[in-house]
Amino acid sequence: MKSERGIMKYKDFIYYPFKKGGFGKGSVIIYHNDDVKIVPGYPSIKRLVLLSKVPEHFPEGVSVEEKMNGYNVRAMIVGGDVAFITRGGYLCPYTNARLNTLYGEKVKALLEELPPGSFLAGEVVGVENPYVRVKYPEAPYFDYFIFDIFVKTEDGWRQMPVEERHEIVKRHGLRSVRLLGTFESSEAPLKIKEIIDRFDKEGREGVVMKDPEYKRSPAKYTGSYTNIGDIREGMRYPFDEGKDYLFPRIVREIFKVYEEGLSDKELERRALELGMAILKPAVESLKEVAQGETLFERFVLRFPHEEDLEEYLNYTRSLGVKVIVEEKWEEGEWIVVKAKKFKNTSNVYRSMLKSGQTPLD
Amino acid sequence: MKSERGIMKYKDFIYYPFKKGGFGKGSVIIYHNDDVKIVPGYPSIKRLVLLSKVPEHFPEGVSVEEKMNGYNVRAMIVGGDVAFITRGGYLCPYTNARLNTLYGEKVKALLEELPPGSFLAGEVVGVENPYVRVKYPEAPYFDYFIFDIFVKTEDGWRQMPVEERHEIVKRHGLRSVRLLGTFESSEAPLKIKEIIDRFDKEGREGVVMKDPEYKRSPAKYTGSYTNIGDIREGMRYPFDEGKDYLFPRIVREIFKVYEEGLSDKELERRALELGMAILKPAVESLKEVAQGETLFERFVLRFPHEEDLEEYLNYTRSLGVKVIVEEKWEEGEWIVVKAKKFKNTSNVYRSMLKSGQTPLD
Repeated sequence: MKSERGIMKYKDFIYYPFKKGGFGKGSVIIYHNDDVKIVPGYPSIKRLVLLSKVPEHFPEGVSVEEKMNGYNVRAMIVGGDVAFITRGGYLCPYTNARLNTLYGEKVKALLEELPPGSFLAGEVVGVENPYVRVKYPEAPYFDYFIFDIFVKTEDGWRQMPVEERHEIVKRHGLRSVRLLGTFESSEAPLKIKEIIDRFDKEGREGVVMKDPEYKRSPAKYTGSYTNIGDIREGMRYPFDEGKDYLFPRIVREIFKVYEEGLSDKELERRALELGMAILKPAVESLKEVAQGETLFERFVLRFPHEEDLEEYLNYTRSLGVKVIVEEKWEEGEWIVVKAKKFKNTSNVYRSMLKSGQTPLD
Repeated sequence: MKSERGIMKYKDFIYYPFKKGGFGKGSVIIYHNDDVKIVPGYPSIKRLVLLSKVPEHFPEGVSVEEKMNGYNVRAMIVGGDVAFITRGGYLCPYTNARLNTLYGEKVKALLEELPPGSFLAGEVVGVENPYVRVKYPEAPYFDYFIFDIFVKTEDGWRQMPVEERHEIVKRHGLRSVRLLGTFESSEAPLKIKEIIDRFDKEGREGVVMKDPEYKRSPAKYTGSYTNIGDIREGMRYPFDEGKDYLFPRIVREIFKVYEEGLSDKELERRALELGMAILKPAVESLKEVAQGETLFERFVLRFPHEEDLEEYLNYTRSLGVKVIVEEKWEEGEWIVVKAKKFKNTSNVYRSMLKSGQTPLD
């Protein structure tokens, strides 16, 4: 369990994120009106790098769902209210305010059909959030797509079968990630390849493969659009995301090139794309810093109440993240802000430009 | 100080490499015929990534020496004999046997001119070694190029000025790394740029810049040939060298592209080279493993005596490195072996090919 510093309040909730113990990374204990709940960490999903191996992982067939590019949020009823918990085990005030306004009652109604202590997990997507901003035609601003329901059992949780989950989510007026098909194991590699090729063109992240009854552990697969695109995004800030993004995504691409049996010409095209994704954004942001600028990400957030905005700013400060509000205005019921999040890469770049020296060797 | 496991014997020497304490990484205590000596770690040299900053680091001018691509070996007299110590603080039996045969007497004579406890440092280069194999026209097989002499003083060591060092090395029939020039600080960036551009064409690593009197700490600079070439070499074995080579070398290239002010076209060329250096060797070695092969490096070593070979093989085993002798023959006075060093990447690749799964996410 984390130290006192880890205790965060969000309105009526008190919660302790804890990293160790039997519930995995991102698990939390939440208190609310004398109700004490444990929300286990969202289980990490193994990643496949060879589609040809899908039949071995899912010999009885596989349901394929879209893996959306946003951030993972779990929801559980605590003390009669719904708490929305990020992957790391935090109650982000922005996420809670926005999701409660949008879907609080519906999520509550869904979870009330299930044993107490059940929870669901979904992806927050769209451009109006502080974490991962990707514009989906089906969710340009802010939305929530459910991909898992964990039903409380006597000694833990079971994951609700795919079809049943889609049905209950729909019935409650909530949204699910897309079910792209359920395939026999032998046809799955080709079918998934077709989906990934289409997704690479459409700029979509990838898929999660699931045994329809959750008898086997799920697996994910992403295409080149994501592997290389993540590097391109991350390398605007090499000393923030960039350095961590590089190696794992390059390894995925190595296996993708191998499995696709690319010709020399095609390999060159992929290599150019990768090389540009690494060098170009990094050199561009270096030029900006050399011209005296500071690197930041800019985004728009929309809060139901002034106090939600304040809670959110306190929260970012408590995590050591520097977010400042550039503009603020009212739009109907909403408090809208344009905000900036500062990047550590500015400081590293500045010091390197001053000394001409690298901190890395 | 390392535990008992760290104690290695090489013929008459007993030595303890130690990582902590006041003498830095790679320092050792050596015993030999009741003579106890400390050899401090070779100091790490800061790396510049902007040549425009050279004048600030060397306001009184700078001597530029070639940085050769081999491995760093220090030499000190202990108990009347010369011990050759690798960067990590080991007495590699191959290196000792070969260097003693080649230069033992000369190094001893040089060091005997200096106060006891003085030592020198140089680069072992050529293709006949187990570590870094680069063919230099001036040293195709095995040679030793001295680049530093540490003269013992009352409370430590001082580095011998550049000209004086070159003179004493030459006088003893030993070789120095090339002194490429001593420049005024204002002209240094352009002069070094010219050297690096020539070195990039010739396939040479880079330069070390030194205040001629060692009044300021030295600095190194490498060109694109080395930054990208290291990645190309390393990515044959992504899970051995590859993953560590990537980020620092990419950062050097980012600053190089920025300082050179590359056009879009030139940036694309550099990006293609980088992308190919990352993907191509990795995919090639993956194909080899998929075809049932095991990845290894192959090299030729030349020992004065059979017992030196045995010492060397015991030594590699004690370090947990798998080296096997494929062929062995006599050539005049020499025992020559063709050896293989196995790479961990084979095991990681094999397990990934079997499961289709990445260990990294």
